[in-house]
Amino acid sequence: MRALPFLALAFTLTMLTPQHDESVGAVRHILEAQQAAWNRHDLNGFMQGYWNSPELTFFSGAQETAGWQGALDRYKKNYQDAGKDMGQLEFRDLRIEPLGDGAAFVRGSYHLTMRDGKAPHGLFTLIFRKFPDGWKIVHDHTSAAE
Amino acid sequence: MRALPFLALAFTLTMLTPQHDESVGAVRHILEAQQAAWNRHDLNGFMQGYWNSPELTFFSGAQETAGWQGALDRYKKNYQDAGKDMGQLEFRDLRIEPLGDGAAFVRGSYHLTMRDGKAPHGLFTLIFRKFPDGWKIVHDHTSAAE
Repeated sequence: MRALPFLALAFTLTMLTPQHDESVGAVRHILEAQQAAWNRHDLNGFMQGYWNSPELTFFSGAQETAGWQGALDRYKKNYQDAGKDMGQLEFRDLRIEPLGDGAAFVRGSYHLTMRDGKAPHGLFTLIFRKFPDGWKIVHDHTSAAE
Repeated sequence: MRALPFLALAFTLTMLTPQHDESVGAVRHILEAQQAAWNRHDLNGFMQGYWNSPELTFFSGAQETAGWQGALDRYKKNYQDAGKDMGQLEFRDLRIEPLGDGAAFVRGSYHLTMRDGKAPHGLFTLIFRKFPDGWKIVHDHTSAAE
């Protein structure tokens, strides 16, 4: 029965490969939903892409923000306070890379177009993990020009 | 033979768990070696922690640098040009998290103490992958105060 190890291997590969393909599509779908939510100024919709946990981490410049609520508060302060503007968001140069079983990371850039003509932009790295209710960002590192 | 599925599961868990434990120690060891290399001003030693590939990516602020050579050139320009100083480096708040089989990510902060008394600092996110010759950083996102 020399065929058995090969069959076992083939079965294992069959189990693993769709996971990877599926992760890229699922993560891309979440990022597209985030961009669409931002552009209708739906911050709660945008936040659905993040792990709703105190363990979510958000790095921006030299500042670390802890937890889903902390990340939401930061977005509200920076983009919804009096005189602030969410603008129009575009993600570009997305590179989604699976990392083993149930994780992926994303490299990309964000480009905002604000009412006042300013165009803030920068880079981000996202870590995604797969949860029973879908893929979620567990860590976001965003940086603008320093 | 009801025991077989359980044995298969136990075997799988035995195969997976040490991988995770091993990854944290291996990654920590590389970061310690990087810190030591930096502090003896051995940039080539420091660079051993990075994947020696044109596919290595390095995000800093809003700037993306491609490849191992590009990352080395950037470090040389910023820390070894005339009048520049590598200073003393300390990594703090390291959180090493395995991501499936053969990958991990690291959150942490860097603190430099320069000859002129300045103390640049910021946050980093690193993605590690396991290669035949060991764990290597495949992506580095570093940011200082914006």
